[in-house]
Amino acid sequence: MKKYLVNLEGIGIPKYKKIAIHIKKLIDENKIKDGEKLPPIRKLAEELNVNNVTIVNAYNKLESEGYAVQKIGSGTYAKRKEVAINFKKKYSNVVRRISSEKLRNYIDFSGEAASSELFSVSSFKEVINKVLDRDGTEALVYQEALGYEGLRESIDKYFWRNSVDSDNILIVSGAQQGIDIVSKALINVNDNVVVEKPTYGGALTVFKWRRANVVEIELQEDGMDLDELEKVLKKNKIKCVYIMSYFQNPTGISYSSIKKRRLLNMAEIYDFYIIEDDYLSELIYNGDEYVSFKSMDTNDRVIYIKSFSKIFLPGIRLGYLISPHDFKENIQNSKVNTDIATSSLMQRVLDMYIKDGMWKGHIKKLNEIYRERYEFFRNALEALEEYVDFILPGGGLHFYVKIKEGLIDSMELFYQCEKDGVLITPGIIFYKNPKEGKEYFRLSFSQTDLYSIEKGLGIIKNIFKQCK
Amino acid sequence: MKKYLVNLEGIGIPKYKKIAIHIKKLIDENKIKDGEKLPPIRKLAEELNVNNVTIVNAYNKLESEGYAVQKIGSGTYAKRKEVAINFKKKYSNVVRRISSEKLRNYIDFSGEAASSELFSVSSFKEVINKVLDRDGTEALVYQEALGYEGLRESIDKYFWRNSVDSDNILIVSGAQQGIDIVSKALINVNDNVVVEKPTYGGALTVFKWRRANVVEIELQEDGMDLDELEKVLKKNKIKCVYIMSYFQNPTGISYSSIKKRRLLNMAEIYDFYIIEDDYLSELIYNGDEYVSFKSMDTNDRVIYIKSFSKIFLPGIRLGYLISPHDFKENIQNSKVNTDIATSSLMQRVLDMYIKDGMWKGHIKKLNEIYRERYEFFRNALEALEEYVDFILPGGGLHFYVKIKEGLIDSMELFYQCEKDGVLITPGIIFYKNPKEGKEYFRLSFSQTDLYSIEKGLGIIKNIFKQCK
Repeated sequence: MKKYLVNLEGIGIPKYKKIAIHIKKLIDENKIKDGEKLPPIRKLAEELNVNNVTIVNAYNKLESEGYAVQKIGSGTYAKRKEVAINFKKKYSNVVRRISSEKLRNYIDFSGEAASSELFSVSSFKEVINKVLDRDGTEALVYQEALGYEGLRESIDKYFWRNSVDSDNILIVSGAQQGIDIVSKALINVNDNVVVEKPTYGGALTVFKWRRANVVEIELQEDGMDLDELEKVLKKNKIKCVYIMSYFQNPTGISYSSIKKRRLLNMAEIYDFYIIEDDYLSELIYNGDEYVSFKSMDTNDRVIYIKSFSKIFLPGIRLGYLISPHDFKENIQNSKVNTDIATSSLMQRVLDMYIKDGMWKGHIKKLNEIYRERYEFFRNALEALEEYVDFILPGGGLHFYVKIKEGLIDSMELFYQCEKDGVLITPGIIFYKNPKEGKEYFRLSFSQTDLYSIEKGLGIIKNIFKQCK
Repeated sequence: MKKYLVNLEGIGIPKYKKIAIHIKKLIDENKIKDGEKLPPIRKLAEELNVNNVTIVNAYNKLESEGYAVQKIGSGTYAKRKEVAINFKKKYSNVVRRISSEKLRNYIDFSGEAASSELFSVSSFKEVINKVLDRDGTEALVYQEALGYEGLRESIDKYFWRNSVDSDNILIVSGAQQGIDIVSKALINVNDNVVVEKPTYGGALTVFKWRRANVVEIELQEDGMDLDELEKVLKKNKIKCVYIMSYFQNPTGISYSSIKKRRLLNMAEIYDFYIIEDDYLSELIYNGDEYVSFKSMDTNDRVIYIKSFSKIFLPGIRLGYLISPHDFKENIQNSKVNTDIATSSLMQRVLDMYIKDGMWKGHIKKLNEIYRERYEFFRNALEALEEYVDFILPGGGLHFYVKIKEGLIDSMELFYQCEKDGVLITPGIIFYKNPKEGKEYFRLSFSQTDLYSIEKGLGIIKNIFKQCK
């Protein structure tokens, strides 16, 4: 009962509201569990020294907001589903706070982009000054809507061996914007969109905004379950399939070449488009060759989205799209109406980075450092085999970990970790239905050195131990 | 008949398609007028040396794409309404091309932002280096979703005299993104959105994307026709009203304080929100005091959007929002899911600009230069009174000009101007129905010095003369 005690003094907010807010907080923070019975009305009224009707009002409010279910003759119970939805908010609030300077003393396994510490500010400064000296105000005015021509040409030359026309490349402000822009150009209300299950939460939100009908197809170890997809395709018109080709977020899974070929064939047969989100393909540790869907795309079925923020600098919002010929104009218009154009100066800086070979050097350095962390992390995770299972991604910046049955759910794990100064990403962020994914969590090593990896995993192990 | 001749050699595209494409181009470029009869089938077939059925197919294709109407027993006629829609595309293509380096020898009356030539690159360079020296990699990582705290505090302190909480400020990548983000957070399918008539085309597109029902309310010399608005409000639930408080785009109109107060009152009574797009309020030449809707907003009914790109540097995509308390969280989430966050480095640069007083100096300089251009332009325009009418905006960067009846429509004027090396913005860009606005065009002096103003208006005068 002690946890229900709440300060009811002061004017303004009515007492029943204060009580409801307090209980909501307890549920959000998992101090009241899903399905846990709330105290009987009379008992809580006594405890808090209020009228019964105040508690009735508080419980009614909780129910109306999806935080409780009242069962006639039995009492009122805390509700879990909405907890998960609220948890998503809570999670992003925590993670947002973390990125501010104040909270740097967490061990952060929630990162999504390469650490800025691995980036040389002095060489960045050199490049930016060179660009300003070379281009003057020209560097600071509007670009063509497509983006800076020099950068588009460099992308074509250095990343695609001149195989895509630079006119088909559109510079965007990061991959998230890429997904948003493609959605606006491609997806209408009630269109069917297929995603991997689980998938990147930011993409789910964008598709939801477009009021698309999102269909999740289970991931297997070599990519999406294409038999399952074909069943769906036979019954429904699908507009597009959103996939991450390498080191999928969150699972770390990459597509086999067989699945790549088959999915491309299916796109032609069933007339849909593939949105390929190239998330982290620069960081391959197991020697596999990098072959994108786009590079195999003979029928112009792939919309390729590349983020530079993940491996270059997250604060520099840059990425690009390659659009099929048919959507080129739509996608360009979509960009203009979204934010006119992407900042010009940084496009020129990145261009010079690529042309001067600094990009290549940076990627090489990232590969060396992260490969070491990856191996270290893998070994440390293997020492947790009593508690978790995981798949080896072979590249990228994270592991997707499955908690052994009955041990603890990952939201609860999140709260316990946060308390102990460790940040993880619970699986529920990556599913359409927030009831799913509770047995998974994602651990990223992008922001953690070997010492923090060891320490952080040690803390997690202790939490697991206590659960047993 | 000569204009119909088209090269039909080569394989690949069928002949009927080539003919249709050619005729579409003629219609787009106004070489075939709206309602003009296309040649009889047999005659054109003869002329082009093809079968009759090829022409039949070409005309069918034109009709299916909205470029022609077939009238039984009479023939096929070019269609105008679609011309206007296609014209919008054509216009934005021309304007986009212009912003690339190749086409700088136009006299550009289509600009929307202050000229970058008025900006000192050397002081910009100094600031950027100072920021990098001070902040190191910190300047290059993700910001909080809200944007760099320092900049938000500066905005509050220097632009709002500490009257808005910096936590209610959200940094965005320019005003266009601001409108997009607010729409996502606020507007649902079939919601009613009121705009000024005419209004900014980029806003119209965004509302259309959200599948809102857009209601245009006529502008008067002191702002929107509020009697008309009240009639609409009495019959319909309106979600929000999008307005530009000063030097409206395109009309140049500003709101009187009476109308400001009345609109704010109506927002409270009829429960809607005002999206205030602060477009160019820094450039007031007639001595009027600047009073935003937001500053008068006692009921938290105004979503304020400010662009820095118009007056600072268009290539630096920066702006900000102030959201009412109720929408704060929605709008923040909308930003995260649109592009995570705005580039961090430029936020720090702008912050230092403001704190060091360079912003104030820059605005002062812009005011001096543009006030001179404004007066010069006004006098030059008055010399055209035989052909046009216009309202004096008293500030900003453009005039909205009405062509005297029957002289020429502004699309045709656009084409003739373009041919003579002058760019104008025809009115149809600013109306929901592309049939409207043909008697208006916008002339901006942001990119033109006194010499080009004189020369450009001279060219336009000559075109008018020839029409008489």
